[in-house]
Amino acid sequence: MTRNSNRLDLKKISSELMSLTYGSMVSKILRDYDNTDEVNKQLERIGYNMGIRLIEDFLSRTMSSRCLDIRETAEKIQLAFRMYLSIQPSLLNWASTGDEFSLMFEQNPLAEFVELPQDLTNLKYSNVICGCIRGALEMVQLDVQCWFVQDQLKGDSITELRVKCLRRLEDQVPAGED
Amino acid sequence: MTRNSNRLDLKKISSELMSLTYGSMVSKILRDYDNTDEVNKQLERIGYNMGIRLIEDFLSRTMSSRCLDIRETAEKIQLAFRMYLSIQPSLLNWASTGDEFSLMFEQNPLAEFVELPQDLTNLKYSNVICGCIRGALEMVQLDVQCWFVQDQLKGDSITELRVKCLRRLEDQVPAGED
Repeated sequence: MTRNSNRLDLKKISSELMSLTYGSMVSKILRDYDNTDEVNKQLERIGYNMGIRLIEDFLSRTMSSRCLDIRETAEKIQLAFRMYLSIQPSLLNWASTGDEFSLMFEQNPLAEFVELPQDLTNLKYSNVICGCIRGALEMVQLDVQCWFVQDQLKGDSITELRVKCLRRLEDQVPAGED
Repeated sequence: MTRNSNRLDLKKISSELMSLTYGSMVSKILRDYDNTDEVNKQLERIGYNMGIRLIEDFLSRTMSSRCLDIRETAEKIQLAFRMYLSIQPSLLNWASTGDEFSLMFEQNPLAEFVELPQDLTNLKYSNVICGCIRGALEMVQLDVQCWFVQDQLKGDSITELRVKCLRRLEDQVPAGED
């Protein structure tokens, strides 16, 4: 089918449905935990588990080879946003050390229809994205930290996701490979 | 933007991401409840809550008027599958009474990557869809029952979703309208 004719051409579903499904999950977790910090952690962990699976799909579709530097990694993350969320964030605010950058975007498919109530200002609603990036990059031996600096759900004019590369992880070469 | 130029042209995201997100939610609920029947109920209820919101989006995009008969309702559900899940189920197996039909489909965007373990054969993995249909139709004064007859996740060759119309609900005419 089309999947074979163009590996980047993913099957698509409506972002409205995604937003409602994700919202249902966040509500469920909010009901389970009293503590918003714990909810944020749970969302990050769910994202992490998604990321370690999504990276396989990403690598096989894009036939990516190893990134030579952080800038290339950033561009791959940008591509992943385009492929999976159909948005193209800008890469901005590079740290002078070159190991930290921001993804800025004005549309967040996870947060359509969403308004945070006053008592949930600490909720990192889209924290699943942070976990997803962390999980995916861990699978390619990159240890990163990821967090929201700005969020339109909190009244900011744009959503800014910060990624900081902490270190390259020890390579785990499969037996028999060089 | 494009949304205004074509109301049926929804923003789309990758079904892979949707499948992973939905899978995360199902896993979370499975961890919360011992009983698979209770998990099925929870999924249906989440779907119901999504349905009662999604119908507004559907009605405003399709500018639908009231369906004259069940066949027309069935076609609207088929359209909704195309809009939100990007699949076109077949409408088949009409009951002679004309109040019951099946939606048959071979691709289920919620269930990509999914294999049910042996001990979860009772799990109605995609039960959120049943709830969604029930919730959406309740908002247009139609009380339906909805269930999976066949499911490719259970080894069937096709997925068959059965919809049975139980009754028209009492009209609740807004004050001031005729």
